[in-house]
Order: sequence, then structure tokens, then C-alpha cells
Amino acid sequence: MTTARYEYDVDTAVEDLGDNRFLAQLSSGYSIGPYPNGGYLLAIVVSAMGKTTSLPDPMAVSAHYVSASKHRQSAGIDVEVVRAGRSYATLAARLHQDGTERMRVLATYGDLGAGDGETVELASPPELPPPEACLGRDALLQPPNALDAEIRNRFDVRFHPDTLGWRRPGGRTGRGEVGGWVRFADGREPDAQSLVLIADSMPPAVFDLAPGGWVPTLEFTVYIRARPSPGWLRAWFRTRHLRNGLLEEDGEVWDSAGVLVAQSRQLARLNRPVSTSGG
Amino acid sequence: MTTARYEYDVDTAVEDLGDNRFLAQLSSGYSIGPYPNGGYLLAIVVSAMGKTTSLPDPMAVSAHYVSASKHRQSAGIDVEVVRAGRSYATLAARLHQDGTERMRVLATYGDLGAGDGETVELASPPELPPPEACLGRDALLQPPNALDAEIRNRFDVRFHPDTLGWRRPGGRTGRGEVGGWVRFADGREPDAQSLVLIADSMPPAVFDLAPGGWVPTLEFTVYIRARPSPGWLRAWFRTRHLRNGLLEEDGEVWDSAGVLVAQSRQLARLNRPVSTSGG
Repeated sequence: MTTARYEYDVDTAVEDLGDNRFLAQLSSGYSIGPYPNGGYLLAIVVSAMGKTTSLPDPMAVSAHYVSASKHRQSAGIDVEVVRAGRSYATLAARLHQDGTERMRVLATYGDLGAGDGETVELASPPELPPPEACLGRDALLQPPNALDAEIRNRFDVRFHPDTLGWRRPGGRTGRGEVGGWVRFADGREPDAQSLVLIADSMPPAVFDLAPGGWVPTLEFTVYIRARPSPGWLRAWFRTRHLRNGLLEEDGEVWDSAGVLVAQSRQLARLNRPVSTSGG
Repeated sequence: MTTARYEYDVDTAVEDLGDNRFLAQLSSGYSIGPYPNGGYLLAIVVSAMGKTTSLPDPMAVSAHYVSASKHRQSAGIDVEVVRAGRSYATLAARLHQDGTERMRVLATYGDLGAGDGETVELASPPELPPPEACLGRDALLQPPNALDAEIRNRFDVRFHPDTLGWRRPGGRTGRGEVGGWVRFADGREPDAQSLVLIADSMPPAVFDLAPGGWVPTLEFTVYIRARPSPGWLRAWFRTRHLRNGLLEEDGEVWDSAGVLVAQSRQLARLNRPVSTSGG
């Protein structure tokens, strides 16, 4: 567990307890206020799942969040190999703390390097100004009524200057979008596994539609479509339907070669803004 | 199990064996060739899950397909109540036949009638000609090299005339879309539960991009966003990224009141067209 060089690898390392049971330490480095980011929790589960199958790639991962996890504490991850086929494996996992279940995950693993099927791509990566013309993570310095987001220190992000308008009074655009360039702050290159975290690495797009505080995820599904090439990723997230406080957020992550490498969707709840008067 | 008046209710009925274990009979009425439709299998699981929670609505349902189910045979459904909270419940289920697991499902249940959160809707229902100006299910009479799709007889569908071009040589548009009006053929009104089937009730949108035979689903997630009003639904499905034979299909279902009632996404594999020379 101690040879990893990069933050991501240290923070998603799991100890193998045998019988597909694993132990992890939940870092506070991916938290929004006191709450670990949902993509970070999923990355830990994927780290454990990867040790139970010989197939290299998570192709579809679905997480249902059961109760709020606590950072700076350990968590157990129990993996069940539902089926280990030649081309695909189905895995199930639960993450728990002190006997309380935190999340339940299903995954289909496969080999993104195999196969000779057809390719038709109708879309293209989001159009972005060069990274140096975008807004860096300092743009995310917290307004006084927001939860502190420690996760922003894990990524080098360069937001499209037309997004993040919600940080300024009257600057909300109403388009429900956020996006830009993203890579790990410490230079780690992306891989198929870490895309589940990168797909949840930006502030909620819903902040462009309505004010809010914590936006807890109920369900989060990520499709890994290709192994990413090294270098900057381009990510774009969009919320089009906020209904009675519930919202979907759809995301796309494209790699430096212009390949769509991940698609994400989550169902989340927009909680009211954190009060500035304490409590 | 025998009082249901409508096909859907008969075909998704489950017998309660106690201890959250259920038994169902897989109808052949929702099959594509010999394979039961993935949304139909999910509807059966939702039927069983609904009997294990007092919360009325499936809000997010994620299914991973483990092995091909067999129709005209019984299936067992075992439900686990992961957490039964006041506002949300998390449920897990497995569907199995003769000791072989067919699918694994996670669901978050809640009450779509509760809450007083904010609503911002950026989208609108798909624009469709009136049903009588659209293409009915006869338009789906099978080309000689396609699998017979018994499921088409369960629905009254009126496809947008600009879709389904793949049925004619040279008629493929390359837009990767299919959509139109849809309702149950026997007059049953839609509800939150049956939306998981309706969200998988049209031919694959990928047929508009490339020829194919069976398109087995690997993963299927449906968000139910509102309980549908009675009457025609409008559904639209889109595939934008076919990569190495794998594709996503995103769907939206809108009700007669113009409310988005379901969002679906699936990861599926485009198999080669069925040979016309037999075998």
C-alpha cells in the first residue's frame, strides 16, 4: 500500500483482507465540507473490484449511495464476483463503515482493448479556449456561504470562462453547464479506473441554475468507453432538468487524442445553501 | 396473480414466496428473437422490489445483465432491503433461472409526490407530428434478416416519419435517433413502475448508424423523474457514440402534460446482423 507515488493511488489504495474483502482509509482530500466526494468513494470501490477480476477495464459502474460516508476513517469494501466470464465479468460491492452500509455498487468489467466492432462517432470534444485562457482552480475560492471543497486541490482544472458564473452575484447563466480542462494536480496520468473520479471532479452544473449547498448524489453511473491517452482531459457536465429539488447531471470526458473516454450520469438532490449565520 | 386486467400487469406479476423471495413467469411477449427484452426483465424486478418497501416510487434503477434470460420459463427474484429510510430506500435484487444468475439490480426508491424543492426545466418534449401522421407498428414488419420482435405487439407506437430509415436500403440517416408516440396497446395507462419498460420499448437507435442483429444490453439505468399523466407518451432515443461495437443509448420519456417522466441510458453491444442463410 505504500509504494504509490501519486495522491490518487495512495488515496484509493486498499488492503486485501482475503475472501474479496478489502480495507481502505477515506482521505479528507476529496471532501466537500465534511462529505467525501461520491466519485472518490466509487474510485475506492473500483480499486478493490479490480483485484477480484482478471479483466482489465471497468466498462459500466453503477453506484447507489446509501448513507453519508465519514472521511478520515477507515471503510470496508466487500466484493462479490457475480459472474466471471471470458469477455465480461459482473461484480457487486458494498462499502461500509462501523457496520453501516455507505454505498452499493455494480460493475461490468471487460477488455477495452479487445474486439473489432464498428465505430461511428457523431460528437466531438467540447470546444475550449487553451488552458491558459481558462479559469484555474483559484476561481473556485469559496464564496462565504459555500462548503469548502478540498477536492479542488487534487486537480488542475481550467474552466471554460463562460461557466462558473454562479460565483458572482447575478452571474448565473441559466444554461446548467460547467466544463473545461482537467488533469491530476500532481501529474498523474489518467487511466480507465481514475475516470470514475474525474467524472465527478467539477462543481455541480446545477449551481448554474439555482443556488445550493451540498448536492448529495443518489445514483451515479459511469461508462468507460476507452482507455485515455496521457495529457489534458476535456470534461463537460450539463443539468437540464431540475425537478422538485432533484436533478440529473450528464458528463462527458474526452482525452487528448479527441476520443470520448467516459460518459457519466448522476441523480442528485439540490440542498439549500449553507447558512452564513453558522449552525 | 390472476386479477390483473392488462398484459403488463399479468406479465410482470410476481408470486411472493416469503423472505423477499419472488417467482415470475417470463413471457415471450416482450422478446426479440428468443431473448426477453431487458426493460421487461427490469420491470419484473421492479414489480418484486415494490413489494418490499413502503416508499411508492422507483427513482433510480440500475441493472447489469449477467447472462441471457430464457422466456417461457420461470425466474426467481431475490430482493435485499439494503436500507429502508424515511425518505429513501436502497434495494438490491438478483434475477435467476435454474440456479444461473441473469441480472443484478440496484434501486433507490422514494416518494415523487413529496418534497418542495426547486424546479427549472431547460428542455421540452420532442416535436412530433400528430400520431396519425406518424408510422405505426406495421412499419416495424421485419426485414428478412432481422430477429422477430414480439415486443412490438405490446405497444401502440407511432414513430416520427424521419426515423426508422434503416428499414429501407439506403434509408439510414446516420443521425442515430428513433422516437415517437408510445402507449400500451391494450389501453393500460403508464405509471412510474412501467416506465422502466417503456424506456426500452423502441428498436435500437443504433440501427440508424450501422446494421446489426441482436443488441444485448450490458447495463441499463432509468431515472423516474415524475409520475406520468394518463395518455400518450413521447419517447426519444439517441446513440451518438458507437465505439468498437459498444454503444450508449440515451432516452427521454415525456408525458401528455409535457413533463419529463423518465430518463434512460444503456450500454449495449451491436452484434452483427442475423444471417439470412440460416444457422
